[in-house]
Amino acid sequence: MKFNWQGVAVDGSARAGTMNTAHGNVPTPTFMPVGTAGTVKAMTMDAVRATGAGIVLGNTYHLMLRPGAERVQMAGGLHRFMDWPGPILTDSGGFQVMSLGALRKLDEDGVTFRSHLDGSAHRLTPERSTQIQHALDATITMCFDECLQLPATTEAIAASMQLSMRWAARSREAFVARDGYAQFGIVQGGTDPALRADSVRALLEIGFEGYAVGGLAVGEGQQLMFATLDATVPLLPATAPRYLMGVGTPDDLLGGVQRGIDMFDCVMPTRAGRTARAYTGFGQLNLRNARHADDLGPLEPGCACLACTRHSRAYLHHLFRAEEMLGPMLLTWHNLEYYQSLMRGIRAAILQQRLESHAGSLRRAWAGSGAAASA
Amino acid sequence: MKFNWQGVAVDGSARAGTMNTAHGNVPTPTFMPVGTAGTVKAMTMDAVRATGAGIVLGNTYHLMLRPGAERVQMAGGLHRFMDWPGPILTDSGGFQVMSLGALRKLDEDGVTFRSHLDGSAHRLTPERSTQIQHALDATITMCFDECLQLPATTEAIAASMQLSMRWAARSREAFVARDGYAQFGIVQGGTDPALRADSVRALLEIGFEGYAVGGLAVGEGQQLMFATLDATVPLLPATAPRYLMGVGTPDDLLGGVQRGIDMFDCVMPTRAGRTARAYTGFGQLNLRNARHADDLGPLEPGCACLACTRHSRAYLHHLFRAEEMLGPMLLTWHNLEYYQSLMRGIRAAILQQRLESHAGSLRRAWAGSGAAASA
Repeated sequence: MKFNWQGVAVDGSARAGTMNTAHGNVPTPTFMPVGTAGTVKAMTMDAVRATGAGIVLGNTYHLMLRPGAERVQMAGGLHRFMDWPGPILTDSGGFQVMSLGALRKLDEDGVTFRSHLDGSAHRLTPERSTQIQHALDATITMCFDECLQLPATTEAIAASMQLSMRWAARSREAFVARDGYAQFGIVQGGTDPALRADSVRALLEIGFEGYAVGGLAVGEGQQLMFATLDATVPLLPATAPRYLMGVGTPDDLLGGVQRGIDMFDCVMPTRAGRTARAYTGFGQLNLRNARHADDLGPLEPGCACLACTRHSRAYLHHLFRAEEMLGPMLLTWHNLEYYQSLMRGIRAAILQQRLESHAGSLRRAWAGSGAAASA
Repeated sequence: MKFNWQGVAVDGSARAGTMNTAHGNVPTPTFMPVGTAGTVKAMTMDAVRATGAGIVLGNTYHLMLRPGAERVQMAGGLHRFMDWPGPILTDSGGFQVMSLGALRKLDEDGVTFRSHLDGSAHRLTPERSTQIQHALDATITMCFDECLQLPATTEAIAASMQLSMRWAARSREAFVARDGYAQFGIVQGGTDPALRADSVRALLEIGFEGYAVGGLAVGEGQQLMFATLDATVPLLPATAPRYLMGVGTPDDLLGGVQRGIDMFDCVMPTRAGRTARAYTGFGQLNLRNARHADDLGPLEPGCACLACTRHSRAYLHHLFRAEEMLGPMLLTWHNLEYYQSLMRGIRAAILQQRLESHAGSLRRAWAGSGAAASA
């Protein structure tokens, strides 16, 4: 079978579809829970499955350092290692090298850096990153790109984008094509529409199974991010999946879908879950807030997650106050359930050609009013 | 319905039975997972249920300080608060006051102490401890006793035991009897058979639904603990359940059952699970040990837990090295599964009158040989 994405419906610029892979099919738009080091933090894979997630993320940088890509390969690949037989997309490591690696030295060929874990020296090149992702058995391999430190001049952003495009060509060269597997190119170019267009042209010339928009959600703000999507996404082929990397809040996801994005990943729902912050249809709550101490109602009425179906806000509040592990476990579960149900609702609205009114309802409820949204 | 314990089979001094309570029936001998602060650490209640646990522990001291007994009562009791509809036994707080409370002041009436959480002043008496356990809706309430700091002279141990017996009478007086609920007296007296016999006599005169042996597993060693059980358990009524508090290793449990004990609780399996130590039929393993890094076999072949049925030792090793929460989650699950399956196996052996040979097999396997038992 071939890897592909098949459209099912369009509504404005938004699309609903199905991504078909060697490891199963994924309805899009989809949110991918982040499983950085071979585990979605605080979740069993059964719990991840229960939220309805269709594809999860792994991370080249983290896994190459620990436990090591070849070790994961010996264990039968990341699917088997982490007990996720479904599709896995792996980040190329470019972003983490810049955010976590020490003593980075960048040259035309690649990046030399020291591990944030033990200071050991490592090198990543487009070839090595692609090889590692192959060893991990990633369903979707990402190109190795440079992630520029911001702020930067337009010249620096252009030079970085051009380097990433040369690396994209080398990543493609190093990619071993297999049925049902894919490699995605990553559009760079900051918030400059002309640079983004140049980047898209370079990637299309190489040709990939899917296209990601990188270098956003790095502090530019939602308005500039959306403007960049408005300028970029229409240039991407209608037949390939589109992935907005590292994004974002529920409102970011909704805005991304409205601009034609099919795939998202973000640590927000999992990280927030570990720090007592809940995403709900009526905005965010902090479960550590004293006003939940005697609230015997569910976190979010109607939510299908374990936290909401079986426990009270008072209990969740207690778990976080007592620093019990079950607090992060239950709230991560809830947040991932919320993100998945958000995407299911958005997809249903696209299928029924009512995304705009659905989006309005979602945004009004998030903005909320009264006690429920104020904590 | 009345709370009671019904014997099903005896094998030597060991007994198999069923404890019938307002919150369901529990096959004995049984191991009770410890849910100190209203949660069995790192476990969902579904996971606790999946191990086959029949009854869990709560703790008066911890719950009175946070979230507060009256708050739990308002939430519908501890069963509902923590989502465990089955039987719950609550410790009286006597042990934790001595081990955790600061600036303890003991008098004939009770103990004044400061919270280890915030330094606030609190007082526990037999009446207040019993009242708190009632508010928590404990299926089995424990008497409030004094837990002596060791080492101590025989005179001090005798005086402490006598105080605990006066407190037992007051605890009984304060206990509100309800159908299917029970209160257990606690035998004290250190390792002195005469003091233990005095303590048993005092408790029998008061009369309880069950009897616990307290003040053991506090450093006296297994031999002295077993000798104390040999001297104490035969004095207890054959018709009431017998509970050895805070014990212990798999071998301690086996020896306790062989001496007529029906119920156990201990933090060992849960605490060990959080620190990478696994209990198995072939002894203990430390999953952080480098020799597991490439071991693709299950932690314990044949074990029904999530860790063993779906993951490799290599993966568990990775999770602990990466300090991922899923490591403690999976290993706690395994250890509780091991403890429950141990008790199921022991009970089956009693029913089939083959406990002695079963005990021999268990002990030989724990002592083990070869690589499997050496880590």
